[in-house]
Amino acid sequence: MDESVQGVLLDYSRGARIGLPEAVFCEGKSAGRLLSLLERGLNKESPILFTRLSAEAFASAPENIRAAYDYHELSRTAFAERLPPKKIGSVSIVSAGSADAAVVWEAARTLEYLGIAANVYEDNGVAGLWRLTSKLEAIASAEAIIIAAGLDAALASVLGGLTGKPLFAVPTSTGYGMAKGGESALCSMLVSCAPGIGVMNIDNGYGAACAAARVINLLNHAIETDGK
Amino acid sequence: MDESVQGVLLDYSRGARIGLPEAVFCEGKSAGRLLSLLERGLNKESPILFTRLSAEAFASAPENIRAAYDYHELSRTAFAERLPPKKIGSVSIVSAGSADAAVVWEAARTLEYLGIAANVYEDNGVAGLWRLTSKLEAIASAEAIIIAAGLDAALASVLGGLTGKPLFAVPTSTGYGMAKGGESALCSMLVSCAPGIGVMNIDNGYGAACAAARVINLLNHAIETDGK
Amino acid sequence: MDESVQGVLLDYSRGARIGLPEAVFCEGKSAGRLLSLLERGLNKESPILFTRLSAEAFASAPENIRAAYDYHELSRTAFAERLPPKKIGSVSIVSAGSADAAVVWEAARTLEYLGIAANVYEDNGVAGLWRLTSKLEAIASAEAIIIAAGLDAALASVLGGLTGKPLFAVPTSTGYGMAKGGESALCSMLVSCAPGIGVMNIDNGYGAACAAARVINLLNHAIETDGK
Amino acid sequence: MDESVQGVLLDYSRGARIGLPEAVFCEGKSAGRLLSLLERGLNKESPILFTRLSAEAFASAPENIRAAYDYHELSRTAFAERLPPKKIGSVSIVSAGSADAAVVWEAARTLEYLGIAANVYEDNGVAGLWRLTSKLEAIASAEAIIIAAGLDAALASVLGGLTGKPLFAVPTSTGYGMAKGGESALCSMLVSCAPGIGVMNIDNGYGAACAAARVINLLNHAIETDGK
Amino acid sequence: MDESVQGVLLDYSRGARIGLPEAVFCEGKSAGRLLSLLERGLNKESPILFTRLSAEAFASAPENIRAAYDYHELSRTAFAERLPPKKIGSVSIVSAGSADAAVVWEAARTLEYLGIAANVYEDNGVAGLWRLTSKLEAIASAEAIIIAAGLDAALASVLGGLTGKPLFAVPTSTGYGMAKGGESALCSMLVSCAPGIGVMNIDNGYGAACAAARVINLLNHAIETDGK
Amino acid sequence: MDESVQGVLLDYSRGARIGLPEAVFCEGKSAGRLLSLLERGLNKESPILFTRLSAEAFASAPENIRAAYDYHELSRTAFAERLPPKKIGSVSIVSAGSADAAVVWEAARTLEYLGIAANVYEDNGVAGLWRLTSKLEAIASAEAIIIAAGLDAALASVLGGLTGKPLFAVPTSTGYGMAKGGESALCSMLVSCAPGIGVMNIDNGYGAACAAARVINLLNHAIETDGK
Amino acid sequence: MDESVQGVLLDYSRGARIGLPEAVFCEGKSAGRLLSLLERGLNKESPILFTRLSAEAFASAPENIRAAYDYHELSRTAFAERLPPKKIGSVSIVSAGSADAAVVWEAARTLEYLGIAANVYEDNGVAGLWRLTSKLEAIASAEAIIIAAGLDAALASVLGGLTGKPLFAVPTSTGYGMAKGGESALCSMLVSCAPGIGVMNIDNGYGAACAAARVINLLNHAIETDGK
Amino acid sequence: MDESVQGVLLDYSRGARIGLPEAVFCEGKSAGRLLSLLERGLNKESPILFTRLSAEAFASAPENIRAAYDYHELSRTAFAERLPPKKIGSVSIVSAGSADAAVVWEAARTLEYLGIAANVYEDNGVAGLWRLTSKLEAIASAEAIIIAAGLDAALASVLGGLTGKPLFAVPTSTGYGMAKGGESALCSMLVSCAPGIGVMNIDNGYGAACAAARVINLLNHAIETDGK
Repeated sequence: MDESVQGVLLDYSRGARIGLPEAVFCEGKSAGRLLSLLERGLNKESPILFTRLSAEAFASAPENIRAAYDYHELSRTAFAERLPPKKIGSVSIVSAGSADAAVVWEAARTLEYLGIAANVYEDNGVAGLWRLTSKLEAIASAEAIIIAAGLDAALASVLGGLTGKPLFAVPTSTGYGMAKGGESALCSMLVSCAPGIGVMNIDNGYGAACAAARVINLLNHAIETDGK
Repeated sequence: MDESVQGVLLDYSRGARIGLPEAVFCEGKSAGRLLSLLERGLNKESPILFTRLSAEAFASAPENIRAAYDYHELSRTAFAERLPPKKIGSVSIVSAGSADAAVVWEAARTLEYLGIAANVYEDNGVAGLWRLTSKLEAIASAEAIIIAAGLDAALASVLGGLTGKPLFAVPTSTGYGMAKGGESALCSMLVSCAPGIGVMNIDNGYGAACAAARVINLLNHAIETDGK
Repeated sequence: MDESVQGVLLDYSRGARIGLPEAVFCEGKSAGRLLSLLERGLNKESPILFTRLSAEAFASAPENIRAAYDYHELSRTAFAERLPPKKIGSVSIVSAGSADAAVVWEAARTLEYLGIAANVYEDNGVAGLWRLTSKLEAIASAEAIIIAAGLDAALASVLGGLTGKPLFAVPTSTGYGMAKGGESALCSMLVSCAPGIGVMNIDNGYGAACAAARVINLLNHAIETDGK
Repeated sequence: MDESVQGVLLDYSRGARIGLPEAVFCEGKSAGRLLSLLERGLNKESPILFTRLSAEAFASAPENIRAAYDYHELSRTAFAERLPPKKIGSVSIVSAGSADAAVVWEAARTLEYLGIAANVYEDNGVAGLWRLTSKLEAIASAEAIIIAAGLDAALASVLGGLTGKPLFAVPTSTGYGMAKGGESALCSMLVSCAPGIGVMNIDNGYGAACAAARVINLLNHAIETDGK
Repeated sequence: MDESVQGVLLDYSRGARIGLPEAVFCEGKSAGRLLSLLERGLNKESPILFTRLSAEAFASAPENIRAAYDYHELSRTAFAERLPPKKIGSVSIVSAGSADAAVVWEAARTLEYLGIAANVYEDNGVAGLWRLTSKLEAIASAEAIIIAAGLDAALASVLGGLTGKPLFAVPTSTGYGMAKGGESALCSMLVSCAPGIGVMNIDNGYGAACAAARVINLLNHAIETDGK
Repeated sequence: MDESVQGVLLDYSRGARIGLPEAVFCEGKSAGRLLSLLERGLNKESPILFTRLSAEAFASAPENIRAAYDYHELSRTAFAERLPPKKIGSVSIVSAGSADAAVVWEAARTLEYLGIAANVYEDNGVAGLWRLTSKLEAIASAEAIIIAAGLDAALASVLGGLTGKPLFAVPTSTGYGMAKGGESALCSMLVSCAPGIGVMNIDNGYGAACAAARVINLLNHAIETDGK
Repeated sequence: MDESVQGVLLDYSRGARIGLPEAVFCEGKSAGRLLSLLERGLNKESPILFTRLSAEAFASAPENIRAAYDYHELSRTAFAERLPPKKIGSVSIVSAGSADAAVVWEAARTLEYLGIAANVYEDNGVAGLWRLTSKLEAIASAEAIIIAAGLDAALASVLGGLTGKPLFAVPTSTGYGMAKGGESALCSMLVSCAPGIGVMNIDNGYGAACAAARVINLLNHAIETDGK
Repeated sequence: MDESVQGVLLDYSRGARIGLPEAVFCEGKSAGRLLSLLERGLNKESPILFTRLSAEAFASAPENIRAAYDYHELSRTAFAERLPPKKIGSVSIVSAGSADAAVVWEAARTLEYLGIAANVYEDNGVAGLWRLTSKLEAIASAEAIIIAAGLDAALASVLGGLTGKPLFAVPTSTGYGMAKGGESALCSMLVSCAPGIGVMNIDNGYGAACAAARVINLLNHAIETDGK
């Protein structure tokens, strides 16, 4: 039985089709396979965003490969080249606590890769409400907002009631016991009393960035078209 | 086989032992049994609080029994006599939405029965934050606070970060889908980022009132003792 | 104890604050309370959208009140007045099967209320893939897309891979057994292999419409601002 | 993209606002971040309680920092300075088995930090009922009682029926199989047949201590006020 | 397609094989099928115990059939003939609250049918511990003990630590919210700190009686054999 | 704060009270505490059974302590002295697969410690039905039967329909995926179509042995009493 | 907004594409919609199988429509015309108890509609093993076997170890408590110790029949091709 | 107590009985036991397939044993001898992503062992639909199809609607958060809108191969018989 047919069939056309180029989720992939993918990602015609790429896994690549990449440890992301910057639009990324940082920065780095401006606002848990309200105006001035929060995820509801901008909420796996690895935060966000929040899978900072990018891309397209 | 041994063995000594007299949970009890209990509850030596007593069930009792009771439909509670009023202490009962009303009033009525002053503040969901902040001072002036909220239950975290008073939170079964009959609100309250909130079973307004009463009773006892 | 303080504290300022006026979820509210709310909803300054308003509940209102409302049975929605139509932008609402109709139309009616154009495309389950592909161009021409699907919710992944427009997915409670009242569809959507889909609570057509409206409102605002 | 904005925004005003100063949950924080927080915690104006601080993590701090702290290994807590002792009130901390010790001592240490007297009574599982009854009088003489129990958590119900003092119950993650990491104990406590028990998240000894502190703080305030 | 092959294939030989004759669970069976089974149950060679037979369902049988049966409404059981009484052994059936009565009496009636003596002790919830301790000697004098309890099911652990007799515990579906239809009581019993309790399915009073009967039957067999 | 009050309060009187002497569950206990307990267990007046005692943990005890104990690695049990052998009665321990061996031998060793004869029959999964039927007569000749099975746990139902002896079933955590760590086996046993099976917590071989011991102890007591 | 676009888009080409013509799941469909579908189903070019069609719903159709259909109440199925009979192959449908009858007959009727021979064997629960073994030869002589069982679903494992024929198992929602509406049976089947059983959704007799039909259709195609 | 009776009772007759010879699941087995089983597997009369045999575990066997085996690391399978090739029939194994490779190759290797031809088609996730459609004809030309997919498992529904061949779907434990270790993929497959898909336990590539083998074996038997 020949295992060589078992390759990775990347969806290179995705960037052209939906504006979000192929990304590779690295967790659970072997060193050999990752190396092969890192080599492919250097091809300018088909850039790749690597997510969940641990420092250990990245370190196992040869020095020349590593040098070609922009690697960011906290967010565990890497890319060799980013898309051209969008003309308009920026995204605010707001978190409840510093434990949400890995998710926050996965979103920030994905947006950076997609050519979209982003600002990060950390540690705004609603038990200290003043931390959020003092930054509200800046946060709400963006064209889309990403909220990363674990535990009770109350930040999503409070912020959702204070701004009409498109909102994407990422539950994080922060906490213990009945935090249930983020499931409680997820449910809180889904049943939020604030209307119109789009919810992502637990810890999926990448997905939230893609959702925000769909909005920013639409906006750029509309402005361009409108200019005609 | 003789079924007559199957009686209800009320714990009449509970009032003396822990300051919270016997209560009867009426759901699922037959009309015959309820009538017999309503008759026993008229004995001044051993008052009974009836909870989850539906209007239909209460209506099936004879007129003279009904007349002897103070029945409250929204909270589904009844009692014939209440405990003497406590010297000091009051409880604020705060809810997120009007759908929590049955729970709110079950707590209010239980406190009334126990001789404890209570004030009700409804419809303070954090998606409209101004509704809470405008009443905060009044709410926080009480000696204990009960919070009833369903869905994301974000109210508990926001309020818990704004006051140092003893707090008891009751998740309510409001909502649909991932509200899971109140389980999501329960989890949000248990993992709240605000410290020191005691959580009750879903829809258990009675239990929250008893928890608050333990605090008010302690306070009254301390003041009395201190006065000596 | 005075129950009269127990009123409904509507968040009338929400429309101004976030562009989505107050909505009332009618399930579980008493006839008396619904009538009082239907009366308030006739005030032009503070319009209200009624959701989950059953035909039976609506029928219990007096004729003159009913006549003032636009009631839609399948979606169980009512409103007396809708917001002025937005200048640009439309929303495609796509469903997997005819069992998703109530959710589809709740979204459609909410958009109508918010002054946003919407087109409905039903019965596109991927087991008959041709049903979707034949309509793809029309669906993807809108500025935002709502997907309502139950069971395996595979439609969200297929469509998410075919368009770059903002996507909001509503799992529906269609099916039996391991469909688990929509929880399986919800999970499928959250872990979709297509990137950037914002997911709503089960059966929450209203929420999906609000999420789409946040995008359309942003777009209108951007175009207006850009025009200056 | 500048990561330096990603700091920890401590809620230093919490102590003044609600009487429970900021605490830092250490699990999952990097050594660098912990060290920086340990340095901040030496500032007398803004004391910090460290919880879930493992011996390994604490050992990685420099000797002079470690020397400034009172570290307690079993409870994994550290603080440099404690609040002034409260004038009145003490807390009993009662556990079902010796496996609950880490939770018991997290509560005890938190109370010590908050200036509140506490007594610990371990190993009172109700399968050997004499162990509890022989100590009941001492346990119930405190102003608030914390119960830590895993498995069936039957201790909460038995004790809740024997005393009228404020009770806060912490389910512990003791056991295997259907103990479900403490979820079964949590449910037992929430549905306890004893009225008025406030329940905390699994293993949350810190939270139970804060809940008890809310009661003791109230009592001290009341006595002070009353003395005027 | 011929449906007539669809009969009920009773396991008449079970009584001879394991000492527990065939029983029919009536819930969900059509009136026609129940009638046919009630007719078969009158055959002395193959007695049948009917469980979960509602008063309505029984009432739909013809008068002459009903007259031949001993029907018991609270337990929803019926049988025409019982097995000969066992020479030795009796079973104590102990419950936590009056809401467990249907389960208690299903067990009691099953034992009656199997020719085994049983005594019922209701309403011994451990929140009023004196109710149990005052009857302990009588309860523990039996050869096997059945415990029916819902909610926290703490009764099983307390009693299990006080007697060495074979114990079979039935969780009941009493309560609401996190009682989860008896699942919390089930888990409490399974992880009880008292050793050697055999647990049954929720509300399965019939099963508990069969488990106790296996013990009593063994005892009778041993005594008989020993006498030889 | 003095930690020395934190001792282990063993229930030494349990052996006299219920015939099952104290046992110590070793998982999660520190080396120091285990050593102290192993020393106490050498006191003949108060024997202790150690369960879940890993080879590593046992090896850390000094040689003279280890020499005084009968340690059994597969079952992870140790005891210094066993109870005197019972006059009559033996227990069959039957398993579905060789993966259940640790549970099987925990039960066997507990019975050995309690002075009760036991025979082990492994690898009788019903997918190869002949393995069970060929040993049925020997298995069923015992006075009590313990069944250890994971996965579908079908062995419990098949055996429960073939013998009238007291049966105690232990679900094991064998398997992966929807075996859910033994929860599926547990549910299968609880809803078994064979009547009167007492079910234990997942992997609780110790508990099953105690349940069987309650039956054997009763039998010995009955025979002795009968002889008088 | 025009609701008329909301039609049902039947996948008429499915029969040609995969050999299994369109089926309509009737639960939750309105009377009007069902009638319209029943009318379409009379078209010989595009036959429809109706499943979960209650007697009440069918009765609401006009007499002439009803007369054109073969309706079967127990299975809640209807069809006007069946596919031509297959040349070879038959299916055995085996159930554990008479409570599984609705599922059994839904499968039987679906096969009848598809032109495939089927034989039904009910009431073979393994607690009475002789009921299965006595019919084994007949059951195993078919080309595919469907097993419908609830509760512990042990029948699937026993039968799966006795025959090498393609096996499709349908868990049924029989039972109460930890039967969890069929989820326990589902898990038992998925983790069965017998290899190669394909499992269907709970109560999905229709799906099991389709799975068996895929096998029978393949066989007929192979034989035909082979004959050439 | 003699542990030597604790052997492994292999079901050697299974191959003859159902055409699928004994397989050994290696996870959790000790090195000693695995070695003994690897020795037995060299007996030509009773071949054994080893699954979940890690490279480490295999490496611990002596060189001469290892040399006698065909070991495959990715699939963690080993066998010494395979069954004679079947005359007709092949199986397509289709996966959604490269993370499913271990499951895919466990299925492929099991089929190889059973003498059945198999072709592997990896990386056909429906978010890039063209990857599947371009290979559809080849995939559907086989006599049975195995689908391995995690996350939303939408591939099963899309493929199930495009071919009438027997389909067996294996959910994989790919993903994080609400992928729930494969449970979401499992549910999606069970409630798939495509009819007649037989579902296996999570990650059970071995089981899917056995299910497909039951079909191929049937086909070979039918053709042989037909030829007579």
